[in-house]
Amino acid sequence: MTGSLVVVGTGPGKPELMTPAARMALAKATDLVGYGLYLDRVAVRHGQCRHASGNRAELERARLALALAASGRDVVLVSGGDPGVFAMAAAVFEAVETGEPAWRSLDIRVEPGVTAMLAAAAEVGAPLGGDFCAISLSDNLKAWATIERRLQAAAEADFVIALYNPASSARRRQLAQAFDILRAAKTGATPVLFVRAAGTSEAKVTATTLANADASTADMRTLIIVGASTTRRIGRWIYTPRGEQGMSS
Amino acid sequence: MTGSLVVVGTGPGKPELMTPAARMALAKATDLVGYGLYLDRVAVRHGQCRHASGNRAELERARLALALAASGRDVVLVSGGDPGVFAMAAAVFEAVETGEPAWRSLDIRVEPGVTAMLAAAAEVGAPLGGDFCAISLSDNLKAWATIERRLQAAAEADFVIALYNPASSARRRQLAQAFDILRAAKTGATPVLFVRAAGTSEAKVTATTLANADASTADMRTLIIVGASTTRRIGRWIYTPRGEQGMSS
Repeated sequence: MTGSLVVVGTGPGKPELMTPAARMALAKATDLVGYGLYLDRVAVRHGQCRHASGNRAELERARLALALAASGRDVVLVSGGDPGVFAMAAAVFEAVETGEPAWRSLDIRVEPGVTAMLAAAAEVGAPLGGDFCAISLSDNLKAWATIERRLQAAAEADFVIALYNPASSARRRQLAQAFDILRAAKTGATPVLFVRAAGTSEAKVTATTLANADASTADMRTLIIVGASTTRRIGRWIYTPRGEQGMSS
Repeated sequence: MTGSLVVVGTGPGKPELMTPAARMALAKATDLVGYGLYLDRVAVRHGQCRHASGNRAELERARLALALAASGRDVVLVSGGDPGVFAMAAAVFEAVETGEPAWRSLDIRVEPGVTAMLAAAAEVGAPLGGDFCAISLSDNLKAWATIERRLQAAAEADFVIALYNPASSARRRQLAQAFDILRAAKTGATPVLFVRAAGTSEAKVTATTLANADASTADMRTLIIVGASTTRRIGRWIYTPRGEQGMSS
């Protein structure tokens, strides 16, 4: 009896931003495992078991999904956005590495999805139009010094910077500290975007500058984009040109 | 008479990785503009005009799409992957900025999609599981010195690095030079992934190390992922843990 595990990205929230491949995987599963908020995006199907959990405890959730698959079930682990970007796929392979030897031979597949920064960028134009980086501001699993070093490097190299997990009810200092680090290396006029609930029907964009950015307005549903030196506003859009000024296309 | 322009990402190639939102936009368009290879992914629809073009000349393509929209047509500009990541969305806003004043008041929308690095990552596990950056190695529009500086910063800050546009028939040196820069700052055992045609039925993965990576095997359909110091192999998968060793979850 061989089960399977598909780690699925449901995209940013709107049903029409979930890929058909993700939808097909969900339809075929005997068991769905996931954070309650993400499971709620999936239509209930008769005979399909749903294992909802809280937002934390990602490793436990991954282990439950693996154990169910090892017992012969066809499991979908439901993740938001893209499962490979600050989401459940890495937790699954951590659980495989540290878990039952039999889990290493399981049939595991990852289905990509639209991650939050892509949905956020699309709401405002094309701010990720040049080279960019994505940094999670959560220091639950990595040292703040590591995050600080990456923010400094990103500013010095003039990447567009997407900040995931800027704040939660328990983490309130990180974004303000990140803005301070970036202000030391970048001009105050740098465009900063707060995109809340990107890719959902409640999407809300606040466009400001690094000088004026107010960290207290972000929450766990906010994705922040800090522009590069070339990022600019044109009408109601914000975009980063593909190249550098003076280079012809 | 008011037209519209939707810049659509068709995803990496497989139809089931194109979002329903993209498909709906395509179905409603009177005119499709795009690089021939991407237009070929879209089913022909009676009465819909198709304007195919070559791969270069992105600004011209953007201008054609804007001019058609300004003339009252409902245009979809068809891009691969996600249109905001090294694709057509930035070119559209560049064209708006430098083009007809009337284009600034056009109804323009961007539909996000699954960009190549997400599809490539899903093929191999979760290599983008930590902080990461995306760098285009094309120096057609930016100085090589800028790319070099970003590669160095990315290596020093220990980002996972996704390399877009590693090579084309005309550009053969860049990837080898990039590997040389990274070899100076990272250990030779760093995992390097060559993922060709990710998210298509012809996807092919080559997993190697920075010491052994052979730049000559990449072409314009290859996406390269260079691991962080924590990126590791477990069975047939490659992944980057969410955090740093010794931090509990």
